[in-house]
Amino acid sequence: MPPHMLDFPLLLSTLYERAVRIYPHQEVVSVNADGSLYRSTYGETDDRVRRLAGALDRLGIGRGEVVGTLAWNTHRHHEIYWATANTGRICHTVNLRLSADHIRYIIDHGRDRAVFISGDMVEAAERLAPDLPGVEYWIMLDGDPDATSLPGAVAYEDLISDPAYAGSWPELDERSPHMYCYTSGTTGNPKGVAYTQRSTYMHALSGIVFCPLAARDNIMPVVPMFHAAAWGHPFMAITAGCKITYPGHDLSAEGLVNLIEGERVTFSAGVPTVWLAVQHYLEAHPERDTSSIRSFMCGGSAVPRAMIDWYWRARGIRVIQGWGMTETNPVATFSMLRPEMEDWDWERQLDFIETAGLLIPGLRAKIVDDEGRELPQDGEAFGELLVQGPWVAAEYIRDPRTAETMVDGWLRTGDVCKITPEGYIRVTDRAKDVIKSGGEWISSIDLENLIMAHPKVAEAAVVGVEHSRWQERPIALVVPHPGGEVRDEELVDHLRGKVADWWLPDAYVAVSEIPKTSTGKFDKKVMRDRYGSFLSDRP
Amino acid sequence: MPPHMLDFPLLLSTLYERAVRIYPHQEVVSVNADGSLYRSTYGETDDRVRRLAGALDRLGIGRGEVVGTLAWNTHRHHEIYWATANTGRICHTVNLRLSADHIRYIIDHGRDRAVFISGDMVEAAERLAPDLPGVEYWIMLDGDPDATSLPGAVAYEDLISDPAYAGSWPELDERSPHMYCYTSGTTGNPKGVAYTQRSTYMHALSGIVFCPLAARDNIMPVVPMFHAAAWGHPFMAITAGCKITYPGHDLSAEGLVNLIEGERVTFSAGVPTVWLAVQHYLEAHPERDTSSIRSFMCGGSAVPRAMIDWYWRARGIRVIQGWGMTETNPVATFSMLRPEMEDWDWERQLDFIETAGLLIPGLRAKIVDDEGRELPQDGEAFGELLVQGPWVAAEYIRDPRTAETMVDGWLRTGDVCKITPEGYIRVTDRAKDVIKSGGEWISSIDLENLIMAHPKVAEAAVVGVEHSRWQERPIALVVPHPGGEVRDEELVDHLRGKVADWWLPDAYVAVSEIPKTSTGKFDKKVMRDRYGSFLSDRP
Repeated sequence: MPPHMLDFPLLLSTLYERAVRIYPHQEVVSVNADGSLYRSTYGETDDRVRRLAGALDRLGIGRGEVVGTLAWNTHRHHEIYWATANTGRICHTVNLRLSADHIRYIIDHGRDRAVFISGDMVEAAERLAPDLPGVEYWIMLDGDPDATSLPGAVAYEDLISDPAYAGSWPELDERSPHMYCYTSGTTGNPKGVAYTQRSTYMHALSGIVFCPLAARDNIMPVVPMFHAAAWGHPFMAITAGCKITYPGHDLSAEGLVNLIEGERVTFSAGVPTVWLAVQHYLEAHPERDTSSIRSFMCGGSAVPRAMIDWYWRARGIRVIQGWGMTETNPVATFSMLRPEMEDWDWERQLDFIETAGLLIPGLRAKIVDDEGRELPQDGEAFGELLVQGPWVAAEYIRDPRTAETMVDGWLRTGDVCKITPEGYIRVTDRAKDVIKSGGEWISSIDLENLIMAHPKVAEAAVVGVEHSRWQERPIALVVPHPGGEVRDEELVDHLRGKVADWWLPDAYVAVSEIPKTSTGKFDKKVMRDRYGSFLSDRP
Repeated sequence: MPPHMLDFPLLLSTLYERAVRIYPHQEVVSVNADGSLYRSTYGETDDRVRRLAGALDRLGIGRGEVVGTLAWNTHRHHEIYWATANTGRICHTVNLRLSADHIRYIIDHGRDRAVFISGDMVEAAERLAPDLPGVEYWIMLDGDPDATSLPGAVAYEDLISDPAYAGSWPELDERSPHMYCYTSGTTGNPKGVAYTQRSTYMHALSGIVFCPLAARDNIMPVVPMFHAAAWGHPFMAITAGCKITYPGHDLSAEGLVNLIEGERVTFSAGVPTVWLAVQHYLEAHPERDTSSIRSFMCGGSAVPRAMIDWYWRARGIRVIQGWGMTETNPVATFSMLRPEMEDWDWERQLDFIETAGLLIPGLRAKIVDDEGRELPQDGEAFGELLVQGPWVAAEYIRDPRTAETMVDGWLRTGDVCKITPEGYIRVTDRAKDVIKSGGEWISSIDLENLIMAHPKVAEAAVVGVEHSRWQERPIALVVPHPGGEVRDEELVDHLRGKVADWWLPDAYVAVSEIPKTSTGKFDKKVMRDRYGSFLSDRP
């Protein structure tokens, strides 16, 4: 094959260099550990990025080697992102909210040679360090290195006080990794994904094409930089030339509204609980000014319709749902409206805005049944969502669990979805929670929502449990309203006609509460463990 | 290198498939040869694209083989673009305004096995056909195949009446070509560039990131589809999901305004002469409604400041200058404002809007002197512009002239430019027109503009001619206003102090008119031929 076009690799440093050249005065704002504001520009930040790149050279950390971070969303974390990406090193963002065991596993498994730590993580790091002999340097983003026993402790600002890396950024293979992100791992050890230059580049461009950002925007990533690269926004911001506002460790509703109002944020991204807290704060403080903000992206778990509705009606802010995973580097869909929908009434628009949305250009998706057969995209059939594209993972880092998830060039997402005729993806269940009854699937979430709509029911959860004939059958755990009770026949009458008869749960168990995870989700693993043999004597 | 991320190629068919899936009702409108409107949708167009793909299979034109087009901007040309790109064939768009010799050369050199021709090109094709034995099929986009002697003549609509290509589009190498475009070739034979799947894909995404298009847009490409793929807009439109309005062969100002008004066009693209004609038409018809149009892109030659000013003041339309070449597939810059400039007064903004603009994300550029030394980007130094990036050509098709233009991973653009401290590229000359005097460069265009600012001068052109001591020296051809005259000393006084003394022309030649090309540009080649030895006796 002759070259035809230049064999010019897709490198993040090309996007970065252009941004520094064209937007040297664009701002980077960050909240310091003491709550004060740090103000800088792309040009000044570039000097610091180059100093950090020079320092990594002097530490002897080479191309392809890994540095970890245990850090909040700050300008220093941003500098680490770019000093590694531009030089072919790997930035390994570690979720500082994980258990000590998982943090130790992740740092060890990633082969991190240095770890950049936030001041509030020093004590945790001191406990971890003896079990992490591979970490030669603990670099303190704030706080005093003399006050710690950490081996190789050095202050970040001292580290970057020496001469900067000069000249062009190196030519790299576009398929080389620049970042490791590990899944939070509800079962077993976390699994790592290596984001490549090409995959992050394509994610940044394609995301902006569908959900626009421009140099006049001011983007505030609330989703942590240790959580799937803050959904890629530090890379998108540089690509578009946006102002960036990093909230540091203060993720309180008041702190975020202060930044929105004071810095004139136009776009932001975070999980639903963040925006619910901001909603409640704004309801109590109607005088606060959020007029600068056009829309924000919300994802990580299902976005409540009532919240989308409130932001639009009360504040004129459009909530955009995004869906993705660590394995999709990380966003795959946005709930943008199709153009003809823009004339529809709001309630009808909401039916689509509240879905996971439409694929970003460049990706492909399908839903499949248990045998891998493709299902129709008619809004009725549901099956496991499979995706593929330039920013979809092909493997977990040094992990045999790759074989379960990456199959025949597709990523098995573990989400059970419908796809509407309009192309909108609606997540109906987790694959491990869907109930496999005689080769057919029953949606646990559909049943739960129906049962919870009964006036006598406070809360309900449905899980599949072992069944000798049907493999699995649904049972429902039901919490009646305080002081009340609800009979099985009432629930059967309530459900009949709304679902196929074979979907009706085999048993209703009255309980005083539903087991929940630390983040407040129904803990179906606990329920399955507890009720797994509940139907073992049924024919 | 382990894979990390899926090795998923960047194929145009991925963007296309998504657009058909998500926006099946989006419109494709086209002006027929008889002036009537053809109305269709992405969904209906997909059926026709698949029928054409099936027909190409039946004609025995295989993957990697070439079909030519001699056609205007219509829905059928759009179908050929996509049926070839989606199946790994090559669409070779031939500029139907070239001389018969060049058209014959291009079709022969491209090895076109079939040519799709517009009805008004049948006579020309009949004259060419005997010299093009490699063309087995002449496919008539309109008109009657029985009325022509062309070998293998078939009507397009008959060709696509048989069963469609079904199923997924094939997996291709992202570096395989899908389009040939030949430069118009002012000297020698035209040179061909092969656009690849990857290069067009990256151009479409990156262009939209910088100069946004969205599904609510309606884009009207006026620049011909045989001229560097209508500057990529058919690919950008599909990527963003825009409505597309093709003007057919009626490029009159009134015809274009009819489409803008009737179809509610929001974005368009064309050369300055088109928009000047539309301006004059709108000045005479102030009642015509252009309120739907937000901005249009203008390029191909320098865009007059007065025209940009008129559109903004009279119609609220923002003209965006784009710069590029066939060799840059084809757009490299847009004259977008930096965010802080949006608060400036209009005249100051105009100083930047009238430049070639800022690089699109993903490209790199530099200016160099005669010895290839990089020059500062200070808005003063000028040198030849070199560019590189994922959509920059690495070679001409089967053409030894590659070696002159593609050097060390950079494309020599042949344009002499300044780059301002803000990053804006200002084209000051063509490299072949810049005057090389004693190893230093003199801008012919700067001198011309200064001389034409003299009140007694109607028109002036400056060329470099041979000089025994300085290699080249400038001489000025000056057309005085009718009935007037202008003395050399008056011009010298006028120029002195405005340029360095060594820039002053060695001679001023009064002429009645400046030689011009068929497109109205100063024909410096003719001038150099005519006046080449004008200074041969000077010391």
